[in-house]
Amino acid sequence: MADWQRYLDDNQGRFLDELFDYLRIPSVSSMSEHVDDVQRAGDWVASRFGKAGIENVEIMPTGGHPVVYGDWLHAPGKPTVLIYGHFDVQPADPFELWTSPPFEPEIRNDRIYARGASDDKGNSLIPILAAEALIATTGRLPLNVKFLFEGQEEIGSPQLPPFMEEHRDKLGSDLVISADGSQYAEDQPGLYIGFKGLCAVEVDVTGPDRDLHSGLCGGAVQNPIHALAGILDSMHGADGRIAVDGFYDTVAPLSEADRRKIAAVPHDEEEYKRWVGVDELFGEVGYSTIERAWARPTLEVNGIWGGFQGAGVKTVIPSEAHAKISCRLVPDQDPDLIVEAIIRHVVKNTPPGVRVDVRSIEGNAPPYLMPADHPGNLIASEVLTELYGTAPYSIRSGGTLPICSFFRDILGIYSLNFAFALEDENFHSPNEFFRLASFRRGQRAYVMLMEKLAERGL
Amino acid sequence: MADWQRYLDDNQGRFLDELFDYLRIPSVSSMSEHVDDVQRAGDWVASRFGKAGIENVEIMPTGGHPVVYGDWLHAPGKPTVLIYGHFDVQPADPFELWTSPPFEPEIRNDRIYARGASDDKGNSLIPILAAEALIATTGRLPLNVKFLFEGQEEIGSPQLPPFMEEHRDKLGSDLVISADGSQYAEDQPGLYIGFKGLCAVEVDVTGPDRDLHSGLCGGAVQNPIHALAGILDSMHGADGRIAVDGFYDTVAPLSEADRRKIAAVPHDEEEYKRWVGVDELFGEVGYSTIERAWARPTLEVNGIWGGFQGAGVKTVIPSEAHAKISCRLVPDQDPDLIVEAIIRHVVKNTPPGVRVDVRSIEGNAPPYLMPADHPGNLIASEVLTELYGTAPYSIRSGGTLPICSFFRDILGIYSLNFAFALEDENFHSPNEFFRLASFRRGQRAYVMLMEKLAERGL
Repeated sequence: MADWQRYLDDNQGRFLDELFDYLRIPSVSSMSEHVDDVQRAGDWVASRFGKAGIENVEIMPTGGHPVVYGDWLHAPGKPTVLIYGHFDVQPADPFELWTSPPFEPEIRNDRIYARGASDDKGNSLIPILAAEALIATTGRLPLNVKFLFEGQEEIGSPQLPPFMEEHRDKLGSDLVISADGSQYAEDQPGLYIGFKGLCAVEVDVTGPDRDLHSGLCGGAVQNPIHALAGILDSMHGADGRIAVDGFYDTVAPLSEADRRKIAAVPHDEEEYKRWVGVDELFGEVGYSTIERAWARPTLEVNGIWGGFQGAGVKTVIPSEAHAKISCRLVPDQDPDLIVEAIIRHVVKNTPPGVRVDVRSIEGNAPPYLMPADHPGNLIASEVLTELYGTAPYSIRSGGTLPICSFFRDILGIYSLNFAFALEDENFHSPNEFFRLASFRRGQRAYVMLMEKLAERGL
Repeated sequence: MADWQRYLDDNQGRFLDELFDYLRIPSVSSMSEHVDDVQRAGDWVASRFGKAGIENVEIMPTGGHPVVYGDWLHAPGKPTVLIYGHFDVQPADPFELWTSPPFEPEIRNDRIYARGASDDKGNSLIPILAAEALIATTGRLPLNVKFLFEGQEEIGSPQLPPFMEEHRDKLGSDLVISADGSQYAEDQPGLYIGFKGLCAVEVDVTGPDRDLHSGLCGGAVQNPIHALAGILDSMHGADGRIAVDGFYDTVAPLSEADRRKIAAVPHDEEEYKRWVGVDELFGEVGYSTIERAWARPTLEVNGIWGGFQGAGVKTVIPSEAHAKISCRLVPDQDPDLIVEAIIRHVVKNTPPGVRVDVRSIEGNAPPYLMPADHPGNLIASEVLTELYGTAPYSIRSGGTLPICSFFRDILGIYSLNFAFALEDENFHSPNEFFRLASFRRGQRAYVMLMEKLAERGL
């Protein structure tokens, strides 16, 4: 057994204790009341970098949630990789649906339950532990490594682009390795080569200047909830297609080769239904479930509210109604142009008698697709094949890692996605968890990847 | 000056102090956390009856919020009237829109601001004070009076029908006089001869068994908010007509005479727009604003909620979405049949991939219309003409007083609506108020009405 493997084995108890500490910090980047917690999580990461033997550790300001940087650059002639992760998490509500509190991690059935367990605290702690094992047992790393962990991924990394522009030289490298993402299954690796882009809008509909008595004014004024329902309903056809003018204009059609690659990945429709908890699936006509989820753009209303939500009856015509909408985009959609198309659609479909305000909210990210034959992908593929005993599927995700597009568009570097969550782990939902087995396997995988990248070059 | 008038004048300061005490009780009947407050308000009324010289005062159980009864029955050969009011109030949220707190009454510009100031605590205190003035100055009332104040009007008086069945003899009388309602304007009386009926449903749409990540599952499952928006949008046409099958089947059409009577009531469309705070009105095609509000049935969504409502972005497909809907009904619609029609419509318009539960919520009430030439109306008309110097308009309200239908249907008694709120007083909205002038004028009006009913008979 390699020394690093023994080191990893000997230290799993401590690593778990550390992960628990990390998970206890409610670093919700989208909520202003948690801004100090995001900072605390960054402090925790900086301190953990240092403990692993990573050098030149800095907490760097971005104007918003900070970035934590560190490096180990003593392998002249070897490639330089930049390992990426994030220490912020999604909001945890609705709290009442969690079996154990989201910020009090608990192990049940060899799984760690907590908000951020898989996305991305557990996942991103892995490469730090791999580096520590190598430095502790060999005194060095086999290649040059920069670490860049951020605190605003869950809100679309709004300040990362200017940050990257400013620190172009410091961040320069041959390949980004992102520790934010998934494998395909417990016994089947996957290389995620594509992520959807993202944009989001909020729609605010205003009618009367206060809530009105539905008896006195019912029928005589436009009800903002009726108006909003009409606006939202106009955005999809009964065939599941998005009915916003221009929405599909720049979508790169799925080639027959793309569709074959997607069809090659096993998919059990009944199991999928059980997993999401529905009796019947629904989506855009003419595409399979996986094509819809991985390779077709979507428009989803994420939240709606207006008027009386309490128990019983309150017979008002509300003054206002609101909705939050986000879209997942595929090559070659431009998030800014899609937001403009949605704004035009909302304005055009607003009925008489109400005012509407519709505006972009944070989080725009372009879609991302990495060449399947990129050397980073090929080497990672070998490592995963060795570890799992089977070659990875080349797949796409419907999720968004805006950071991949930023690295590509600003620094000219592709991102290899090398991470160990699994898609059933409830990230962004109550009862998020991370498998202990993935936590351990990931550490080994990162050591092997660093060694192989050093040996083969990029 | 009559002795009773002097008595009223001399005691206005005390009456106001008492009204303030009454308004401080947050007797919100629709919220379970206020059940004790509704009881306290009932205790307050019982005690105030006794202080006025009203006899046989009892707080009577109903199975829900109680009823307070009292009488004075020492005028043999004279008519017996039953004076009705309610001591419960609407919820006060949204609290932040109140200039002064809803349960800390404040006088500004000769108006009392508080939840319940006009609907119905200020209004219903009036006949008690009128009775007190007569008993204190003459030792008697000119006719037989029963008082019946209830604590569940704002939730549709669900337990009043069985209560009335049980106490049919005790409540028997020649005419109900309801102290819950409005005049037309400060200088123009109105006799409200009709009220709309009410029914309400809640729609619960359920999709996936938890909130899902919109990247992983977006496009592949039905979004409960999309489904709900479609269901709600299907309920109205672009012409403002309600598109629920069977909704208009039993609606008594407006006769030309009805329309002429409505058109005779002055209406300034620009002033109405300013009052409700909109730039443009909207409603059912083919009817005037006042016809829509007074005499056409309506279906309004009172509240909607689902998914993420916080600041920023949370990219979920929510597990659930909900809406509350209420309808105002006109003769001869049956609330139970309308609920059934809505349930059928919702089920029929639910798209694939979600489950829907739609159910009646408390508050069903049939519509009510009193003959304009009923002797109670004619006598009240004389009193109002004398007080205001001009004859009242014979009008309808879009509001609901289910109790009027209960008195008619269970006890066989029509209800004269004799009350002094004005429609701009924000009942059911923030900043509800009652005019001090109305409070004083109402006291005088009730004494005059009692005297004239005693003199002329019924």
